[in-house]
Amino acid sequence: MVPSYKLTYFATAGYAEPIRYLLSYGNIEFEDFRFKREEWPQLKEKMPFGHVPVLEHNGKKGCQSVAIARYVAKQVGLMGNDDWEDLEIDAIVDSIKENSTKLLPIRFETDEEKRKALRETAVKETLPYSLKPLEAFAQKNNGYLAVGRLTWADLYFVSLSEGINRLAGFDIMKDYPNLHALINKVLEIPSIRKWIETRPKIEP
Amino acid sequence: MVPSYKLTYFATAGYAEPIRYLLSYGNIEFEDFRFKREEWPQLKEKMPFGHVPVLEHNGKKGCQSVAIARYVAKQVGLMGNDDWEDLEIDAIVDSIKENSTKLLPIRFETDEEKRKALRETAVKETLPYSLKPLEAFAQKNNGYLAVGRLTWADLYFVSLSEGINRLAGFDIMKDYPNLHALINKVLEIPSIRKWIETRPKIEP
Repeated sequence: MVPSYKLTYFATAGYAEPIRYLLSYGNIEFEDFRFKREEWPQLKEKMPFGHVPVLEHNGKKGCQSVAIARYVAKQVGLMGNDDWEDLEIDAIVDSIKENSTKLLPIRFETDEEKRKALRETAVKETLPYSLKPLEAFAQKNNGYLAVGRLTWADLYFVSLSEGINRLAGFDIMKDYPNLHALINKVLEIPSIRKWIETRPKIEP
Repeated sequence: MVPSYKLTYFATAGYAEPIRYLLSYGNIEFEDFRFKREEWPQLKEKMPFGHVPVLEHNGKKGCQSVAIARYVAKQVGLMGNDDWEDLEIDAIVDSIKENSTKLLPIRFETDEEKRKALRETAVKETLPYSLKPLEAFAQKNNGYLAVGRLTWADLYFVSLSEGINRLAGFDIMKDYPNLHALINKVLEIPSIRKWIETRPKIEP
């Protein structure tokens, strides 16, 4: 059977990985369409906002990584129990997105010295600024980022944590015991473990 | 009666204005708490992520402007009819937020020459890049940004459009007939008109 979802993104984890985690969590089959960098200019024109990830379903194209992730979270039962819980979850997710976007210049800097300087600022300032409140939330919320149980905020965070560690240059999550435990807990969910084991290797 | 909602923000429109529009749209009374810049360092420590706007309700603090706006949209009936419609609305809102954030350096630049240069780039590149797809959406969606009828994406956009025009230095929306018509349509909604007429004057 052809999967009813098609996810289009670069051949990297990036902002598609939370969506891949969420689809995998719910055992929803999807076409994991990864294009090459040189194909991007041509594909870009076909994307509603000129961006990816894009999720196609029933002939429609859904855009914006967080919006898509929230949509999938609804399909797989990882939302809050009421509107206020969803506000708490959304706030965590937007905060993670906002802060992780600040790290992207490290990835795109080609000068080795400048890259090292950017990485140092990230490790000393940007990341602690972002991770300390998350650690406090996890401590207060029964080991989860929001509302005391597993929600899509946790999968969102864990799916990006690999990339954050890579940009930091080491396992910075080890400095945050509650976040570190949360990562391990999510990676032990059988459907997530299966995704990690079977997903394509990312571009170096 | 004491309003059950308290919204805390600087004495400006900024990212609180969409929330103020949405609360006003639904005739929900709220304490519109505006603090002075010099009070911020002390207040900042009391905010869960060190940011505003913050919406307080039932003794809890909700954070992140878009997350709060979505919560209020649910209370006032401006959501989509199903999960996919909400994805379309969310994508528009995240796109507007992302693009309007790119304009903020204009506001904070103190050097007049540099400010002029930033404004020129915004008017020639950043804003057309952002507004052209929105204009196309409005044209396709019966004059609204998403799903063919009024949703919180429209109030989100219109509430920020004043500030976008101010940063551009002129009424840039006039170049986009569908967006211009949408703005006028939203500003004619009686509860919104009442908000505009009675809201505090913003800081110069």
